[in-house]
Order: sequence, then structure tokens, then C-alpha cells
Amino acid sequence: SRSLNLAVIPGDGIGQEVVAEGLKVLSAVLPQDVKLETKEFDFGARRYHATGETLTDADLDALKAHDAILLGAIGDPSVPSGVLERGFLLKLRFAFDHHVNLRPSKLLPGVATPLAGQPEIDFVVVREGTEGPYTGNGGTIRKGTEHEVATEVSVNTAYGVERVVRDAFARAQARPRKKLALIHKNNVLTFAGHLWTNVFNKVAEEFPEVTTEYMHVDAATIYLVTQPERFDVIVTDNLFGDIITDLAAAVSGGIGVAASGNINPSGDFPSMFEPVHGSAPDIAGQGKADPTATVLSVALLLRHLGYETEAARIEDAVSTDLGERGDLPARSTSEIGDALAVRVAG
Amino acid sequence: SRSLNLAVIPGDGIGQEVVAEGLKVLSAVLPQDVKLETKEFDFGARRYHATGETLTDADLDALKAHDAILLGAIGDPSVPSGVLERGFLLKLRFAFDHHVNLRPSKLLPGVATPLAGQPEIDFVVVREGTEGPYTGNGGTIRKGTEHEVATEVSVNTAYGVERVVRDAFARAQARPRKKLALIHKNNVLTFAGHLWTNVFNKVAEEFPEVTTEYMHVDAATIYLVTQPERFDVIVTDNLFGDIITDLAAAVSGGIGVAASGNINPSGDFPSMFEPVHGSAPDIAGQGKADPTATVLSVALLLRHLGYETEAARIEDAVSTDLGERGDLPARSTSEIGDALAVRVAG
Ligand SMILES: CC(C)[C@H](C(=O)O)[C@@H](O)C(=O)O
Ligand SMILES: CC(C)[C@H](C(=O)O)[C@@H](O)C(=O)O
Repeated sequence: SRSLNLAVIPGDGIGQEVVAEGLKVLSAVLPQDVKLETKEFDFGARRYHATGETLTDADLDALKAHDAILLGAIGDPSVPSGVLERGFLLKLRFAFDHHVNLRPSKLLPGVATPLAGQPEIDFVVVREGTEGPYTGNGGTIRKGTEHEVATEVSVNTAYGVERVVRDAFARAQARPRKKLALIHKNNVLTFAGHLWTNVFNKVAEEFPEVTTEYMHVDAATIYLVTQPERFDVIVTDNLFGDIITDLAAAVSGGIGVAASGNINPSGDFPSMFEPVHGSAPDIAGQGKADPTATVLSVALLLRHLGYETEAARIEDAVSTDLGERGDLPARSTSEIGDALAVRVAG
Repeated sequence: SRSLNLAVIPGDGIGQEVVAEGLKVLSAVLPQDVKLETKEFDFGARRYHATGETLTDADLDALKAHDAILLGAIGDPSVPSGVLERGFLLKLRFAFDHHVNLRPSKLLPGVATPLAGQPEIDFVVVREGTEGPYTGNGGTIRKGTEHEVATEVSVNTAYGVERVVRDAFARAQARPRKKLALIHKNNVLTFAGHLWTNVFNKVAEEFPEVTTEYMHVDAATIYLVTQPERFDVIVTDNLFGDIITDLAAAVSGGIGVAASGNINPSGDFPSMFEPVHGSAPDIAGQGKADPTATVLSVALLLRHLGYETEAARIEDAVSTDLGERGDLPARSTSEIGDALAVRVAG
């Protein structure tokens, strides 16, 4: 019999609530012969306030012993900006070398979008997860004075760019439209931009069936609202990916339904799956959060571990559920989770 | 009698066509007693191909002798990406210390937007123009090899941040809603982010009537498409400003109507006004380009030089013209310019 050994990090705010529903749906969809073992970790604001710790070496060792990680949300206004982001979220992405940050955007039937005319949106962003302006390189001199200088260094390597570009080409190759767009700002960030562009063009030679285009990040935001249907797969750097995936989520149903995977394709470390949304402390504990993004993140987790049928079953259930929402009164977090659990089991 | 001594840079592609209409409207709106003198400069792709020059010290001296600069567009596919951007556009912004990059977004009545429900959009972005990731700091080692490393350094100074933040507060103070949003990514780019946030909070104390908020750049893209009416004045760094102003233009009528000013408020160097759009070589020379963004840039130019009445007259004329477009057959570049010139004169 098979087993799925899952590290669960509910985290802060609505994280607790949405993760409970994600696990509910996971249990309902898993084949009988798969033994699901979960271990919960208490990372986040409470642990930080209690111990001053965000993510220790021992924590990383404990997490490493799992097949995958499911995370709700980390972040609370009581913790200074950056402490949990750099001390936990980014530390984990870097420690486990999560270089493929996968963020699909699909506007499902019946789902509201701020765009007029209900465009067809179905693309996936492959965001680099371990380089760029996210490395924490940089510093400050003369802090707090009128002579302060603060720098941020974007670090880009051929090694790091090539592996994520190659992953994106493979994903594009496997999709019906076989299109890949590189998004950067190579007319201004010429050092990093030329590296990205050259590597992209070199890898493209190995994928002659994939149609490629290059787009500046500023222009990309225009296309995301005027012609989102033009995108199939996008590959981009860490910061540009952060920005455009929030925009992509907004136009394709909102961050209530945006899932993501922080993937290490080598399998040397467990990959981590999380909704794109944050901890939303303003609505925490009220049963108001939509668990759909977490449930869709569970689907990404299952696909990553080879459970393709189960992943598709979750996605179909979500699609049906969203399509029928217009007719229903608002439901609580657990009511939505219950409905999805019934659907995937049935 | 007064004089307006204008440097004109038509540039590449549609730049020539739209600048001609901008000048047409400028001539029509200027009071009789103002003597308009224009000097045309041939910067752009042709000059680069002919001489290898983009912008020399002598060019900068010649430009400096003017009250302001009107630019059409610079850029052509025949020139490698980055050469004209860094060698001309950014060189000029840095040489003339254009630290206030002003980009208003207003959805005028009757103008199409990709957003559903025709939201009320009327805000202005104050984008820092001389720092951040645009400084050209950085480099490449082992270029072209599998060991290449490319860096980009974002440089931020208290001096540079404070002056643009102060400018933005003053603009917010002068507007009816008196709201100012700082957009950054201070949870990840903690060095630069803390500098921006601290300076912003310090200057805020001098403007107690201005309501402030902070927003991460990724979240800002969501609000720009779901709640654009919430924004009044935005202040942000050079790169974030580049990205969100293209998105802002897209939702408020498109880059065909997006104007900008590269302003040096000290007056030590002439400020430069240009449409946000590029040279659009695909439609160049066909009379298809919309000169409205250039005409609105002329309005910003006039306001900067103290011609408030004339600036407002241009903006009113554009507003009326756009409102009536739905009923009209498509017009050529010069037909739109003619119509606007008649309106501002009348
Ligand atoms: C919380 C923050 C560190 C994170 C990021 O910037 O990557 C978030 O915005 C995301 O997109 O996952
Ligand atoms: C052409 C390019 C250098 C420029 C920029 O990035 O600032 C443009 O996108 C703009 O917004 O004016």
C-alpha cells in the first residue's frame, strides 16, 4: 500500500480555516490504498511571538522528511513587515530550492472577473523562485539619516535561469497551444535581461514546436487586462512573477481561487503548495474565507506527486462548484469544503 | 512679450506624426503674446545608425537651453534592445535629474476600458525617475557561459526618495480627496522598502490633512483592476512605477491617451514631456496613431510652465473629443489633431 506523508502548516489568520478544508478534500479524494499521514507545524506569528523563531535548522530537517508541504498563510500585522516573509516564507523557498513557482490562471465558467466581456483565460506562470531581487542581497548605510543609501541586488545565474526556463518550455510543449512568453525588462535591466533573453533563445532551439515571444513586464500588464487569452505559458523572474501573478489572479476570478506550487522538480526537497492569498487577519476565524485556492493547491500537490486523476477530479469539482455559485446563498468556509469533499468522493 | 522656447524630439516610428499634432494644438492654444520658438532634434534610430551616437554632451548642452522638451517616441527594432533606452531616454532623465515622473490616469467619459462597469478613475502616479533599479548599476561575469552571473543593483537614497515623496504629498494636498498611497514591496525588498517607508512616514507628519496608505506592488495591481477609484495620488519607485503606470493606462483608456512628464521641479534643467506609448513601428507613417497622448503631454508641459488655463483648455478639448468618438468614423492622426486644434482655439 502507498503512503502520502504530508507536512501541514496552517499558519496565521485564515490559514487555519482554509487548510482544514484542503485536508478534508484531500482525504475525500485519495484512493483507499493510500495511507495519508499528516504532521502539523506551528510556524507563523504565534510561534514567533512565543519563541522569536521563524524557521530553524531543526524545523527544516523535520519538514524535509515529508513528501510535500501544504501551507495556509503566514503573516500578521503584529509582526514587523519582512520578518515572517524573509524569516519563514522566503527562507523555506530558498532552503528547499523551490525554483519553479507555479501559478496557473484559469477563468472558470460562471466566475466573476473585473474584465468586461468574460475573456477566455487559461495560462500558467512559471515564476523563478530562488534568484532575482528576492535573494536578500543588498544593504543600508547611514540608516535613518538624510544620507541613507539602501541597495537591493538582483542576482541572476545561468544555472538558475536555465533550469526554470527549461521547465517552462517543457510545460508549454505539453499543452495544446504550445506557446511560451518570456516576460522581463531587458531594455532597462540589461545585465539580467540579456542573460534571461539569451538563455531563453538557446533553450528554445531544443523545443522547435513551441512558439515563443518576448514581452516587457510593463507591456505584459496591459496584455493581461486587454488580451489575457493570448497567454499560454509565461516564464519570468521572481519579482516580475510576483507582480503579474497577483494581476493574473485578479482577472481570473480573484485571489480567492488562485493556487500555487513552490516546486523543486529534482525531488531533493519536498515541494510546498499554498494559496496565493495571504492570512487576511480582518476576516480570520469567522468562517468567511474561501478555501477554494487551498483546495486547488492540493490539486497541484497531488499532480506533483503523480496523482493526476485525483488532481483532475478536484479541479473538476471546483469548476462545477464555482459555476453553480451564482444561484446559491453565500456559504461558510467549511460548507464550501464539505461541498467539494462530497463532489470529489462521488 | 513672453516666449516659449521648446526643444522638439519627434524620434522614431509614430513619434514624428504625433509630435506634429502636439505642436499644432500647442500653437492653437498659446496666447497671442507668447512667442513660440521650436528647435527640432534628430535623436533616435536614424541618428544612431548614421553616427553611432545616441545623446552626446553637446546634445545635452543644446537641449539645456530650452524651457521644456517635447518628445514623441524613441525606439526601433533595428536597434538592439537597451541601446536607445539606456543611451537616450534614461540618459536624458538622469542627466537632467528628472526625478518626478508624473503620470496621470483619468478615465474620461465615453472612453472604452477593459474593466467591466465603467469605474471612476482619476489618479496620478508620481514615479521616482532617477534611482531604483534604473541606475544601470550591476554587471555580468562569465558572460555567455553556463557560469554566467548577472546582477542589477537598485540604488535608493534618502535624498532621492524624500524629494519625490515630498512632491507627491504636495500634489495630494492640492487635490480634493487628499489621499496618497505608497506602493513598494517592503516585505521582501527590506533595505529599500524600509527607507521608502520611513521617509514616507516622516514626511507624512508635515501633511496632516493627507490620508495615507501603504500597499505592496503585487496587491496594487489587484486594486488597479478591482477598485481603481480608490486611488488619488500614488508615489512609488522607478520600476514599480513603470509597471503600474502601464497597467493604469490600460484600464483608463489605453496608452493611446496616456501622457507623462519627466519633471525636474527645481528648474535647473528643462523638463521633458512625452506620451507613455512607444514608437509603434508597425503602424508608423500610416496616419493611424492617436496623437491624444502627445496632446495631453503638451497640456502637462503647459501646466509645468505656468500656463494653467491653456493646459485645462487642452484637457477639456480632449475630454469632449473622446466623448464624441463613439459616434464618429475612425479619423487619421492629423484629423484628430485638427479637431483638437479647432476646439482649443475656439
Ligand atoms: C508574502 C511574499 C513574501 C510573497 C512573495 O512576494 O513572493 C507573496 O507575495 C507571494 O506572491 O507568494
Ligand atoms: C522605454 C523605457 C526605457 C521606459 C521605462 O522603462 O521607463 C518606458 O517603459 C516608460 O515607461 O517610459
